[in-house]
Amino acid sequence: MNYAHLDCETDLERAVAAGADERCPPQLANALHYAVFPGGARVRPQLCMAVAAANTGKDPSLAKSAACAIELLHCASLVHDDLPCFDDATVRRGKPSVHSAFGERIAVLTGDALIVMAFQVLAKGMATARYPDRGPAVMGYVADGVAAPCGIAAGQAWECEQRVDLALYHQSKTGALFIAATCAGAAAAGVDPTPWRNLGASIGEAYQVADDIKDATSDIETIGKPTGIDIALDRPSAVRELGVDGAVQRLRQCMEAGLDAIPQCDGRAQLQQLVRLQSQRFIPKNKGRTAA
Amino acid sequence: MNYAHLDCETDLERAVAAGADERCPPQLANALHYAVFPGGARVRPQLCMAVAAANTGKDPSLAKSAACAIELLHCASLVHDDLPCFDDATVRRGKPSVHSAFGERIAVLTGDALIVMAFQVLAKGMATARYPDRGPAVMGYVADGVAAPCGIAAGQAWECEQRVDLALYHQSKTGALFIAATCAGAAAAGVDPTPWRNLGASIGEAYQVADDIKDATSDIETIGKPTGIDIALDRPSAVRELGVDGAVQRLRQCMEAGLDAIPQCDGRAQLQQLVRLQSQRFIPKNKGRTAA
Repeated sequence: MNYAHLDCETDLERAVAAGADERCPPQLANALHYAVFPGGARVRPQLCMAVAAANTGKDPSLAKSAACAIELLHCASLVHDDLPCFDDATVRRGKPSVHSAFGERIAVLTGDALIVMAFQVLAKGMATARYPDRGPAVMGYVADGVAAPCGIAAGQAWECEQRVDLALYHQSKTGALFIAATCAGAAAAGVDPTPWRNLGASIGEAYQVADDIKDATSDIETIGKPTGIDIALDRPSAVRELGVDGAVQRLRQCMEAGLDAIPQCDGRAQLQQLVRLQSQRFIPKNKGRTAA
Repeated sequence: MNYAHLDCETDLERAVAAGADERCPPQLANALHYAVFPGGARVRPQLCMAVAAANTGKDPSLAKSAACAIELLHCASLVHDDLPCFDDATVRRGKPSVHSAFGERIAVLTGDALIVMAFQVLAKGMATARYPDRGPAVMGYVADGVAAPCGIAAGQAWECEQRVDLALYHQSKTGALFIAATCAGAAAAGVDPTPWRNLGASIGEAYQVADDIKDATSDIETIGKPTGIDIALDRPSAVRELGVDGAVQRLRQCMEAGLDAIPQCDGRAQLQQLVRLQSQRFIPKNKGRTAA
């Protein structure tokens, strides 16, 4: 099956190039590109576009701009999460993290500029949308995925609290941007986003569990970022709660719940196929290191 | 003259309350409110709404949401500018800075969440706008005021460069958000924003010069934030370039240029009056300390 219509690299390149033009301070320009390319699996933007494509009445331009916005917000969150005051991670996607390569100040500003770039991209997409009246709803779902009270920034902020609402923590920290992806995709297609929420929440939970498994069982060479962070920072984790095998089982349950949650639509079968394909990436190949 | 129609405190309160609801991690919720209230002079949002109000065909709801968005972005920039890796300012608006009061992690996340909150507010304003087709342009101007290549984040990034384009530095660091205010206000009124750019640029420059004067001649008790930063951090400043009296003269010139730059419109006289009133706030009362 061909998923070329779910590719947004060219659009991301264009967005970053527009921000990093000759008027941009050179280090910030370089850091913006560095933070977005080469990318990870681009799971969230693909999901957003796939949900839109699975529905009739789609607006591919609006969906693609929402997808790019979500990926830029994700990249921004990685830059800020790696900062010394949070994970203090020196490596990301197999290369020095942004603050390691460019310094802390440029890292803070890169994150800030990427967040706003997301909305620049969305503004352009809304201006040329086939159905412009859907724009504000799409934008609302994208923004809710990051902001307070339940977006990924709020999720990260739970790590500063003594008493943590675990369900809210996980759903905000990881689920929120997947929920943004499915709901914004649905809104861009002009269908009610509400029933699309569960798909995003399930994939988000699966992704969080997969991340916990990788953190506990993998090494920096394999996944391109430091591991063992959850234990080092005494963070709640599915592996610490359920053990590795229990966590893998939980991951599969989440994925199945996600597939079941896909609402009836023209492209349901293809969307299920894509989600299955993506989920294979989640399940860690290397479980060699023993988890504590 | 009554400027009650240029007040956005209630709207800002509502926006922060929506983000800081019971699902939000408590420290982040407190920090969000702390960073926005009590506010400064709210010069940028007033300017945005005043420009919209000066034109016929205005959309007050869209203009007000843009104004609130700009103020939230301004508050976010203050929180991040005060971080240890930038100004390391412990005091802001006469009270401990956000990172001093809540720690560095919450300060980073507060800035991030406020940036996104700006676009949540704008999304809501666009959804209920009288002229929704103006939304994407308004949003574009607001976003350009912060992002790369020429927004305030890019302006701040010039401080990390060895070789600085001074004009671009000042225009990006301070001017950009004033330009966003006048252009978004014009776009919300359905008029061409291009001729409204100069008003924002002039006020922005005046404001930057006023800030330089305050940094050089005032003290922390008077202006509620640390002073002497430009010299301590070896930053370019109008006072260092022109001396205090030269800088005050420059400030007046910028304000006059701004007043002249106001395009013909129904409310030109009232708008000039407001800008004059605001400019009186810029000119520092205390020039007692000798500037280097």
